[in-house]
Amino acid sequence: MKFELTILGCNSAIPAFNRFPTAQILQVDRQLYLIDCGEGTQVRLSQFNIRKNKINQIFISHLHGDHIFGLIGLLTSFSLGGREKPLDIFSPKGLQEMIDVQIKHSGSHLSYPLNFHEVDTTVSSLVFEDNLVEVHNIPLIHRVPTSGYLFREKPSALNIRSEKIKELNISVEQIIEIKKGADLKLSDGSIVPNTDLVLPPWQQRGFAFCSDTLYNETVIPIINKVDLLYHETTFLHEKLEQAKYTKHTTALQAGMIAKAAQVGQLITGHYSSRYDDVTPLVEEAQSVFPNTIAGMDGERYEVIQKRNPEL
Amino acid sequence: MKFELTILGCNSAIPAFNRFPTAQILQVDRQLYLIDCGEGTQVRLSQFNIRKNKINQIFISHLHGDHIFGLIGLLTSFSLGGREKPLDIFSPKGLQEMIDVQIKHSGSHLSYPLNFHEVDTTVSSLVFEDNLVEVHNIPLIHRVPTSGYLFREKPSALNIRSEKIKELNISVEQIIEIKKGADLKLSDGSIVPNTDLVLPPWQQRGFAFCSDTLYNETVIPIINKVDLLYHETTFLHEKLEQAKYTKHTTALQAGMIAKAAQVGQLITGHYSSRYDDVTPLVEEAQSVFPNTIAGMDGERYEVIQKRNPEL
Repeated sequence: MKFELTILGCNSAIPAFNRFPTAQILQVDRQLYLIDCGEGTQVRLSQFNIRKNKINQIFISHLHGDHIFGLIGLLTSFSLGGREKPLDIFSPKGLQEMIDVQIKHSGSHLSYPLNFHEVDTTVSSLVFEDNLVEVHNIPLIHRVPTSGYLFREKPSALNIRSEKIKELNISVEQIIEIKKGADLKLSDGSIVPNTDLVLPPWQQRGFAFCSDTLYNETVIPIINKVDLLYHETTFLHEKLEQAKYTKHTTALQAGMIAKAAQVGQLITGHYSSRYDDVTPLVEEAQSVFPNTIAGMDGERYEVIQKRNPEL
Repeated sequence: MKFELTILGCNSAIPAFNRFPTAQILQVDRQLYLIDCGEGTQVRLSQFNIRKNKINQIFISHLHGDHIFGLIGLLTSFSLGGREKPLDIFSPKGLQEMIDVQIKHSGSHLSYPLNFHEVDTTVSSLVFEDNLVEVHNIPLIHRVPTSGYLFREKPSALNIRSEKIKELNISVEQIIEIKKGADLKLSDGSIVPNTDLVLPPWQQRGFAFCSDTLYNETVIPIINKVDLLYHETTFLHEKLEQAKYTKHTTALQAGMIAKAAQVGQLITGHYSSRYDDVTPLVEEAQSVFPNTIAGMDGERYEVIQKRNPEL
């Protein structure tokens, strides 16, 4: 089962150097979750051959333009494509009025139900779940109410060891129960524990999106040991004062967050337009947290599915 | 003096085949006029190395998303770049509320004066002039109030024939008057007519933008003999019923308008996303009006400066 992030845009504020403003797609199995929607997101989806109709949920971090100005274009394009299934948008307060006014004046009509869900950016809580993932928001510190998002896979069904079916003559009904975690009672009354019957469970993969934010240690326990962390690295640490003033994080600080949270991999991004080459930002984060990789438009970052180690 | 159109986006509705939605830049001398502003316009300006700070006027045809959804991004990027000089936007009613609501919720603040000018789409009149051009609107027929725009160069100063200055011992004061059209009175009281003293005047170049519109013959006298006409060619003529229903023009009809108006050159565009290859649309227009050329993102169309013929 796939668990893969695609970056659609990794620049901050103004598009520059062929980097679009923030938008990302998390694919879990065949489901696509859109995170932020900067201007040109629908263009990027088309350029990167991503089927936008697989998107049913959109998670918006905050209402700064470089994270939302592509939303109205995407929403109306869904309509032009005849979409009928509902779309859910999770965001801080205010987004609905922005969208409603644009729909009204542009003579648009949405062909599908659009549901806005207001996210309380002051506390982390469950904002969405389906059969694949749970999504919690992550309170961030920025110039306007802002929230990151943590995606965690739900436990998947256990896989039975195929050789055991024949060996113990397990019935279809028993298989169903074993996959849910049941032990097996044999005809002689003895019990075979579930762990002897199934393969070790799949690890539940996770992805955390933290942008935009001031250096903020309160996220560390929330994103603890997540496989993949996208954390903004707007500036080099030599621009710390500017980062503080604009409520952004330096690459060095992002590395510190990744290290303290013991994440699997850190992806950089939300680069200031002052940086054409982002290598120094990535290297600065790597100096603290070596397993750092550059976020870049069009790049894909997969988390491989692994089983828990045998006990 | 340059008079050149650059197409930033030539697709209709949904971006497709690397064609962005509608936006164009008309450059006259060193001044840039932006016409429509579909999503991604600021990206295109950057990709095509066009200095956006040279834009002081924006002309919007109508409030459908594919002509305006890039506006808020451009306006806020101007601010992020520290713009101070005023910006004037000409459009049908409703645009200001759309922009104001977005500015409010996105926590943006514009660093420069932004002036909205409402265009009456029912009648052609002068909507703007500076020292280079006059701009009249062109009433169009679409599903919402819509207006094209006609740009006409103003007459430039006459160029004196340099050999006459010495021959007739013309003073600096007299030169100034001759450039304005005055005759020359010699010391013996005789008169040299202005036409003997100056080169034939420059022709006043023109560009007309007609999109979106139903086939509409009322534009013909307004755009008569314009050098360059951009006219939408959303569909092939085999889709005439769909063109009528959506209030668009077929390529054949655009050729008929260009022919009847005796324009210099026709540029096609606003292509339906059903067409990957636009050659059939261009060829259909050419079957009626041979001097038709394909509009395409990134292409430039210059009108060369010519003098009137010697009488």
